[in-house]
Amino acid sequence: MANDEVKIIGAWASPFVMRPRIALNLKSVPYEFLQETFGSKSELLLKSNPVHKKIPVLLHGDKPVCESNIIVEYIDETWSSSGPSILPSNPYDRAMARFWAAYIDEKWFVALRDILKAEGEEEKKEVLAKVEEANALLEKAFNDCSKGKPFFNGDHIGYLDIAFGSFLGWLRVTELAAGHKILDETKTPSLSKWAEQFCNDPAVKPVMPETATLAEFAKKIFAKPRA
Amino acid sequence: MANDEVKIIGAWASPFVMRPRIALNLKSVPYEFLQETFGSKSELLLKSNPVHKKIPVLLHGDKPVCESNIIVEYIDETWSSSGPSILPSNPYDRAMARFWAAYIDEKWFVALRDILKAEGEEEKKEVLAKVEEANALLEKAFNDCSKGKPFFNGDHIGYLDIAFGSFLGWLRVTELAAGHKILDETKTPSLSKWAEQFCNDPAVKPVMPETATLAEFAKKIFAKPRA
Repeated sequence: MANDEVKIIGAWASPFVMRPRIALNLKSVPYEFLQETFGSKSELLLKSNPVHKKIPVLLHGDKPVCESNIIVEYIDETWSSSGPSILPSNPYDRAMARFWAAYIDEKWFVALRDILKAEGEEEKKEVLAKVEEANALLEKAFNDCSKGKPFFNGDHIGYLDIAFGSFLGWLRVTELAAGHKILDETKTPSLSKWAEQFCNDPAVKPVMPETATLAEFAKKIFAKPRA
Repeated sequence: MANDEVKIIGAWASPFVMRPRIALNLKSVPYEFLQETFGSKSELLLKSNPVHKKIPVLLHGDKPVCESNIIVEYIDETWSSSGPSILPSNPYDRAMARFWAAYIDEKWFVALRDILKAEGEEEKKEVLAKVEEANALLEKAFNDCSKGKPFFNGDHIGYLDIAFGSFLGWLRVTELAAGHKILDETKTPSLSKWAEQFCNDPAVKPVMPETATLAEFAKKIFAKPRA
């Protein structure tokens, strides 16, 4: 009998690790969560992702799949008849979901990270303006993709919801640290409403860390002396 | 009647633009090639890709699709019954193709570009070692993916062949400029054979630039004073 066990190598605080966990929850696929210790890499991780040596890795039987968004697509395609579709069915909508998911990792998240690195008020202001600009693009993308429904993917959460929503915990922590509201309901009303609904989704709730717990963790890791 | 015309906004020398052109050739989809002038951006490009303002853009009727690998997936899904499948059918093989395609853009190509930027023999040696390491990984990936067949995708070229193969013109130009063989048949025999077969494929041949022409173009653009 083939070994069909599903395992995720990851860590609770990583937004990238949340992605396959949410996807597996959506598909009602049980999995074992193998947590890495912060600051070190297990033998299993190094063996399973020798190229990037990064979490998350999905182990499906003895087969490893790496890179969070690629794992989410793999989950959608492997358990295609179980639970809702994660990717939209229409090729154009799929292309849009992939486009914005890439934008979120390459541009939006990079700008978000820069907020905490900014030195001085001037630089902080510049970075915040960049995030605001990205938010405005994503607000428009939300209205285009959702077509009046609660999620980017329509009636239920999907690929782009997961790609963006996985960062909401760290967004709240960044808001706390920066003393500045980043997802502002007056500027991005659709995204603000979406964020609340996303976090309350039964596939998301069990894996989305509490802001206070994540803030505590952030304090600990950022307090470490840099090499 | 819906406007189903297909256009590619691009430039002949761009490896990223080659990707959707090869995909459309594989699917026997006729298209109009709208070439941008080097150093400027047309109104149509700015309107069609306002986020990144980059080529290639596929226009399908009035709908723009951006980002080369996303366009290739869009072409495969839209003309699914015409020509061979570009993505493998098995979810695991698809995940592998996506993984290595991302690796090629994020790691391999970055290392290739660094060859020409390297200053001094020491730095050049370091960069060449990095490319060689990446080549060795891709040689192994080829043997794993192709399962004894001529292409990453099996009997015909597919997603990963296109993602990697689109760089072969610039690889030859870089070899010429660096005076160093980068894809060496003694070190990467499978990739060397694959590269030759890829360039001779009827879907590739009409869009793959001659090395001499591309080298001439490279000389011209690299001679421009930097801002």
